[in-house]
Amino acid sequence: MTQPHESAKPFELPSGFRFAGATGGIKSSGKPDVSLIVADRPCVAAAVTTTNQVFAAPVTLCRQRSPRSTCRAVITNSGNANACTGRQGDADAVEMGRHLAALIDCDPEDVFVMSTGVIGQPMPMDKVRAGIDSAAAKLGTTMDHFIAANDAICTTDQYRKNAAAEFDVDGRTYRIAAMCKGAGMISPNMATMLGVIVTDFPMSVPQSETALRRIAERSFNRVSVDGHMSTNDTVILMTGGDETSIATDDAMARLIESATDVCLTLAKLIVADGEGAVRFFEVDITGARSDADALTIARTVAASPLVKTAISGADPNWGRIVSAAGYAGPIIQVDQTCLTIEGRSVFENGQPISYDAATLSQVMKASKEVKLRLAVGDGPGTARYWSSDLTVDYVRFNALYTT
Amino acid sequence: MTQPHESAKPFELPSGFRFAGATGGIKSSGKPDVSLIVADRPCVAAAVTTTNQVFAAPVTLCRQRSPRSTCRAVITNSGNANACTGRQGDADAVEMGRHLAALIDCDPEDVFVMSTGVIGQPMPMDKVRAGIDSAAAKLGTTMDHFIAANDAICTTDQYRKNAAAEFDVDGRTYRIAAMCKGAGMISPNMATMLGVIVTDFPMSVPQSETALRRIAERSFNRVSVDGHMSTNDTVILMTGGDETSIATDDAMARLIESATDVCLTLAKLIVADGEGAVRFFEVDITGARSDADALTIARTVAASPLVKTAISGADPNWGRIVSAAGYAGPIIQVDQTCLTIEGRSVFENGQPISYDAATLSQVMKASKEVKLRLAVGDGPGTARYWSSDLTVDYVRFNALYTT
Repeated sequence: MTQPHESAKPFELPSGFRFAGATGGIKSSGKPDVSLIVADRPCVAAAVTTTNQVFAAPVTLCRQRSPRSTCRAVITNSGNANACTGRQGDADAVEMGRHLAALIDCDPEDVFVMSTGVIGQPMPMDKVRAGIDSAAAKLGTTMDHFIAANDAICTTDQYRKNAAAEFDVDGRTYRIAAMCKGAGMISPNMATMLGVIVTDFPMSVPQSETALRRIAERSFNRVSVDGHMSTNDTVILMTGGDETSIATDDAMARLIESATDVCLTLAKLIVADGEGAVRFFEVDITGARSDADALTIARTVAASPLVKTAISGADPNWGRIVSAAGYAGPIIQVDQTCLTIEGRSVFENGQPISYDAATLSQVMKASKEVKLRLAVGDGPGTARYWSSDLTVDYVRFNALYTT
Repeated sequence: MTQPHESAKPFELPSGFRFAGATGGIKSSGKPDVSLIVADRPCVAAAVTTTNQVFAAPVTLCRQRSPRSTCRAVITNSGNANACTGRQGDADAVEMGRHLAALIDCDPEDVFVMSTGVIGQPMPMDKVRAGIDSAAAKLGTTMDHFIAANDAICTTDQYRKNAAAEFDVDGRTYRIAAMCKGAGMISPNMATMLGVIVTDFPMSVPQSETALRRIAERSFNRVSVDGHMSTNDTVILMTGGDETSIATDDAMARLIESATDVCLTLAKLIVADGEGAVRFFEVDITGARSDADALTIARTVAASPLVKTAISGADPNWGRIVSAAGYAGPIIQVDQTCLTIEGRSVFENGQPISYDAATLSQVMKASKEVKLRLAVGDGPGTARYWSSDLTVDYVRFNALYTT
């Protein structure tokens, strides 16, 4: 894979974990399809999963086993989602954990499982077992091992996605490394999004669960362009904690802040990995009646195909942005609604402002991340959301509509 | 325009109305941009308008003037939406009505106005007036006049859209003719949808309002693929009624049934008028807890970009359909969920069914309107929705994912 983004850079991995990727033959392409992350010792871990009512067998498994203080491993396979596969699918997910547990000598319940790929096909368990065997034989602690694990979780991804950070607590440096898969089509989340965050920072079980929810809420959940969830979406946090661990609130805040930055980087990489995506845009909503209202408005603007094509065409077509806020649902104060694009005012208090459209279009064209700031009233609610532009043919037709 | 659809056929127009289209110069292309429909006598008429909180000046005007028993005309201009144009926009919409009223000698309040085109640009009123003058001089009762009026409301439409029907009451034949504009991008309703339904059937003011709501609810509101509403969406019903009219319930039921058929034809033409659209699909939901739940699920499945690409690729990728129902919101009974595609069962009671995917794909490929029937439980709720496939490049990438 070519790596156009920051995930090309190597980094120091958290201690206490080994990584591997292997080819079991689940994918007909022969690309890597089984990924392992194994903790040296039982560790505190938690998972968050899709809200879709139709969810895959490994999601059921992760929900049953999360959170726990004795997690030893995460298996991820690509090429088959093990979703809509009935009771056999549930048995297959359990068998995946059992097969690895025998190899690394742990309780089968201490293994988490994630799957991504085609829905409704039975798991080719011989190939899955072969892939687990092969990966387990290659486990290691280097960046190459991490990358092998990362590549084996990809499906339609055009490049691998990972990021890392360090933070200090009481003079000791802790590390966070994370990988994810997912591509930012029109509905990125309908293409399964999987992620694993690994840190050597120790925390308790409840702390891991709270931290993971906060991290996901402000990263992966801020780029799903229409709130759609796939059958398999899962993010797992593996930590340096055991059943005796407890972190201070202050240290947890630092962990959450660093991990959120890491995951926001990954989330933006998912957004960027869309067919024909050229540039990001950030939607910053203020003045809503509540943060929840602001989030709904931000998500709606970010998901609007017509906004996305306008951004792609570097077209300051503010009417599409304002009218997307108008159909989002939450009440807005149109006569107090103001919009800036890249810091330039185009709409103030419900009235269009005269501005130099050609210059603003040039500014948008030069920007890798176009900033839209929309005030929708005088309320306290704010939210920020990220998205990217839309497919080429659609763009070709729509981006020329007003310019 | 080329006319690939039934709107190429001529039909008998309702008596009592004249039609015209003209070029005022609002569109830089020089294409027709002012459309008039004038009733010979004051008539009962009603309008339904967008639910977007950001709405255009002509929407305000229509809301103020609808319903009424003394309507004389509908002016529609294309090329400029008169939306987000502030107080001047409101004044311009009123002025459009006043200008026509002087020409046809009626109360300015008896004119309805619709606009479609670019948002946030002041109306070029000299051109608008010139277009109204020119159209008013050409009013007539033939199919050519109707088509001229129809063409003048189009913007991004690739072909004009009209349909007609007749029905008998007490031995007398009444006629319905309707035209609309709108193109089925990913969010058809974000590209403004305008429609006018004209009938010589007489009814009262409250009957016109109720009828229009029912007609729109089961036609135009069943094809908006994501429920998005533009700033300008408006549908107007002009009837043969005056302030003394009242129709029987039975006759109203026949009018509503015929007009709904007419408008569903138009709505499907909007869906088909999408970049690269090859085939329709129908989403038929049963077993939901309520009709409202069924409608939400149907709309979500119909709007899913991944479902739309699967249909386009003639890919019986039922996992996308079932999982779209799973994220729609309403509670479904997964273990009672069953799906047929073109009458063939692919998923029964939450379990995949073995079927011949290659044959089913051939059947889908040969179909102009693929039928998806999804039972989501044993509740009484049902709904039907229509959509079409998605843009070519997006399709090229996604339609090959499982096949």
